[in-house]
Amino acid sequence: MEYITLEKTVTQLAQEKKYKILRDIMNAASAFDLADVFDTLPADKRPVLFRLMKKELAAQVFVELQDDIKEQLIRSFSDKELADVLNELYVDDAADLVEEMPANVVKRILLHASPDMRKMINEILRYPEDSAGRIMNTEYISLRATMTAEHAVTYIRQTGFDKETVNTLYVIDKSRKLIGVVSIRALLFSDGGELIENIMDTNAIQSVTTVDDREVAALLFERYDLTELAVTDTEGRLVGIVTVDDAIDVMQSEATEDIEKMAAITPSDKPYLKTSVFETFSKRIPWLLLLMVSATFTGMIISSFEGALAALPALTAFIPMLMDTGGNSGSQASVTVIRGISLNEIAFSDTFKVIFKEFRVSLLCGLLLSAASFAKICLVDRLIMGNNVSISVAFVVSLTLLTTVVAAKLVGSFLPLAAKKVGFDPAVMASPFITTIVDAVSLLNYFFFASILLSI
Amino acid sequence: MEYITLEKTVTQLAQEKKYKILRDIMNAASAFDLADVFDTLPADKRPVLFRLMKKELAAQVFVELQDDIKEQLIRSFSDKELADVLNELYVDDAADLVEEMPANVVKRILLHASPDMRKMINEILRYPEDSAGRIMNTEYISLRATMTAEHAVTYIRQTGFDKETVNTLYVIDKSRKLIGVVSIRALLFSDGGELIENIMDTNAIQSVTTVDDREVAALLFERYDLTELAVTDTEGRLVGIVTVDDAIDVMQSEATEDIEKMAAITPSDKPYLKTSVFETFSKRIPWLLLLMVSATFTGMIISSFEGALAALPALTAFIPMLMDTGGNSGSQASVTVIRGISLNEIAFSDTFKVIFKEFRVSLLCGLLLSAASFAKICLVDRLIMGNNVSISVAFVVSLTLLTTVVAAKLVGSFLPLAAKKVGFDPAVMASPFITTIVDAVSLLNYFFFASILLSI
Repeated sequence: MEYITLEKTVTQLAQEKKYKILRDIMNAASAFDLADVFDTLPADKRPVLFRLMKKELAAQVFVELQDDIKEQLIRSFSDKELADVLNELYVDDAADLVEEMPANVVKRILLHASPDMRKMINEILRYPEDSAGRIMNTEYISLRATMTAEHAVTYIRQTGFDKETVNTLYVIDKSRKLIGVVSIRALLFSDGGELIENIMDTNAIQSVTTVDDREVAALLFERYDLTELAVTDTEGRLVGIVTVDDAIDVMQSEATEDIEKMAAITPSDKPYLKTSVFETFSKRIPWLLLLMVSATFTGMIISSFEGALAALPALTAFIPMLMDTGGNSGSQASVTVIRGISLNEIAFSDTFKVIFKEFRVSLLCGLLLSAASFAKICLVDRLIMGNNVSISVAFVVSLTLLTTVVAAKLVGSFLPLAAKKVGFDPAVMASPFITTIVDAVSLLNYFFFASILLSI
Repeated sequence: MEYITLEKTVTQLAQEKKYKILRDIMNAASAFDLADVFDTLPADKRPVLFRLMKKELAAQVFVELQDDIKEQLIRSFSDKELADVLNELYVDDAADLVEEMPANVVKRILLHASPDMRKMINEILRYPEDSAGRIMNTEYISLRATMTAEHAVTYIRQTGFDKETVNTLYVIDKSRKLIGVVSIRALLFSDGGELIENIMDTNAIQSVTTVDDREVAALLFERYDLTELAVTDTEGRLVGIVTVDDAIDVMQSEATEDIEKMAAITPSDKPYLKTSVFETFSKRIPWLLLLMVSATFTGMIISSFEGALAALPALTAFIPMLMDTGGNSGSQASVTVIRGISLNEIAFSDTFKVIFKEFRVSLLCGLLLSAASFAKICLVDRLIMGNNVSISVAFVVSLTLLTTVVAAKLVGSFLPLAAKKVGFDPAVMASPFITTIVDAVSLLNYFFFASILLSI
């Protein structure tokens, strides 16, 4: 059933309390769609409907719910219901839950989780925030090199049922060190008597350590077309795996974070429509205040040239165009470089290459914009509109454009790389920040050329 | 071997012509790393080194190379070598190749591809650009509902060897309509005598049609945590699958495209460092020109209030701050909404919710910024710096800030939604475009309040 139809049908049937039909419909739907339906259901209907689902499906739906709905459901669960849901969860999802819930709910969760689960949750939560350890699953299948293919298949059948994935199997030695990987496909295509050590791939095994940044893990998925990635401790012992669905979530949220930072917003984990007005406000206002204060600097430059502007009022009219073009040129460069850094396409060692390239691009852009602006002032402003703009003013404007565009692109491409080098987030060096700097540069250029060439 | 070490070692050994050691090292490395090494190798070394690799690895490396290097290698291939590489390729990669190469190379490729391969390539290239059909692989495993699990495993062993993935198996009926999916895991955990129709999942099977946008396919991977997605024709008959690695590439390139459009850059497929100076210039200059011309409008507003500015020169100094704060407020809203639309979190039907939320956020932001600006002018500009700024001017500036921030956030959130509705790309409605509009709005507000409250 399509998601939209599902939402309408379930809401309708819940209203009419037709639980028998509801049970059939829900148990035939996708967990991801059902989670979205729960988001829109009236709060008092949720516990009733949750109980209609089969255990396994209920757990799958539970994982996908919004935090506040998870909390509401847990509070409505009996102890047995809570234990049932917890035991169906994968450890990484259970650890997420513990991280997200308020303290009193966490206490109840840990009380009703099995001792094994509790131990694994605590282990995962020991790793740094945003580390690979935090998103790994500790339930994976490990084989020994001395097993036969047939033995391995039997072993997987016996132990693999509650594992998140069996697409890739990990081969470890006696000290639990990762020594090879076998795809389920290679296993299927082998003779039953073949030893795992002859089937496994030992070349270029991709892995991260528990403390590596989760972004590093996500980029490996992209680079090596993986569906799972091994996670080891710092001694190379296998402790978990990251699955591709979690890597995709990391990629998308890192891209969103970069975009938000580029627009001078403190990143938030929640979808826009789920964020309260005050939260959205608090993510945006510090940057607006900061940038407003730094724009004051630009105002001071203008104030100190008040005399020049009074002597030649026509100059004022070009200020917005110069500032905007400078800002746009700078953010084109900075945004390109920031994205390149995020995708691991540009490193600090490329700084010279980047700067030299931006210099040439900016010369081309600057020359063309200057020429266009000069022609436009002469043709449109002077001839057509008959404004009182002298050729010398047109020349000053064009010269300022050229130098501003070059400066903007150099600043825009260099700052993110420098930020990366000193350990800051390159994305923060994007448009608004660079605009503020470029504004000042363009005005200083403008008044410099004006004072020399127009002798004011 | 780490990628950096690999690059150095291979380059060194190639220089010394130690091909025997090279063969061993290369055949033990990852195809993705080797592809990067080929990028940096001198052109004359590439054909020699390419021939050192085993057939299968060579094909994997070939797929990952840059277009110009692919072309160079194909031109160096004998007919037999070309046929060997082509026959190892998956159809989606072969179709990509045909799409990317110049006409005379394509002719040779199609001549040496097997008739089957040629037919499949042509089929894929019939689908619209950026459609799911273009990124699908036509080599997948389909089962019949009446097979037993044991029979299915034997069938997969016989036919699955050259398929890209066996993680998910597709069950079709006599007319090739998709009726269910079986994970390899479910198959492994079943009794050998069990019928596929009892193991397969028939609920909520995710699929796209060949003509759906590839972005739609990518979003399904994210929403439903898939590793493969079925592609059907418009009659529901299975024709191919999309694998998660291709979906990830789509996600990342869509995010990059959005980011580039937001910064007023025409998107490009190539990594930054691979793009020529002229190409980069040509992706940026049209937008800079367009935005420069529209900024002229702002200049005209200032020109028409030249008298007011001459009467009260202190007003000019606040123009940059008002314009920048308006622009930043607007782009915060637009960028958030654009990303929400891209991730399918915000639809046009949410317009009212979005606007109402942005209105409340903008009131909070506007009030706080106004108060801060008023306090700053009174304390810093007047008391500390002793500038000639009257309380009325401070009041005009604060009032303008409030109305500008509100207007900027409303425009910034509404325009992307409106663009989406009429079929334009929301990302184009980002910062630079909105800045231009907001600049005009803020200046008009400013002069309006100034003329009323300062009677100039």
